[in-house]
Amino acid sequence: MYVVTFRSRLAPGHDAAEYAARAKRMLELAERIPGFRSFRAYASDDGERLSLIEFETAEALRAWREHPEHREAQRRGRERYYSEYHLQVCELVRESHRESASG
Amino acid sequence: MYVVTFRSRLAPGHDAAEYAARAKRMLELAERIPGFRSFRAYASDDGERLSLIEFETAEALRAWREHPEHREAQRRGRERYYSEYHLQVCELVRESHRESASG
Repeated sequence: MYVVTFRSRLAPGHDAAEYAARAKRMLELAERIPGFRSFRAYASDDGERLSLIEFETAEALRAWREHPEHREAQRRGRERYYSEYHLQVCELVRESHRESASG
Repeated sequence: MYVVTFRSRLAPGHDAAEYAARAKRMLELAERIPGFRSFRAYASDDGERLSLIEFETAEALRAWREHPEHREAQRRGRERYYSEYHLQVCELVRESHRESASG
């Protein structure tokens, strides 16, 4: 299982409508990849954004990284959307999950 | 390098002041561990919280997991603070960082 963290800050003056449409499209593409597990979006109090994406296999991760539309989106991201970003590809070592009976 | 993701939702009626004090203390402890790299806190639009913690080594990760005060905080967390949580320990495979000249 692979966990991808993508932290970013949006550039001042980016085209918010174009960015939102593209982000929506990227999620649609990712969800169609066999082995896609989850996508979640977060933000910090100081405006950093974090996307957390999980893939079951290295093949799924590669398919996502190399998808032509995603490649194009990555290029646009570097050129227009983000003032900075930090991408990490991680392999899951272990995980635990708990839901409280009272929760 | 290890990346720990800790997603959680706070239980209704938890002691917010106690929780905040304990969370602050946990960060102080983590920062003192040799090999601690970073801590960041995020939230999603629907109220899920995510803490992202990085350690340089497996030894640092183990020291954090087994710290007696952290153990006690984990127990309190399960009993009182969280209605649910999801913990993942991941090993970094690769990362890239970029700051735009115009950003």
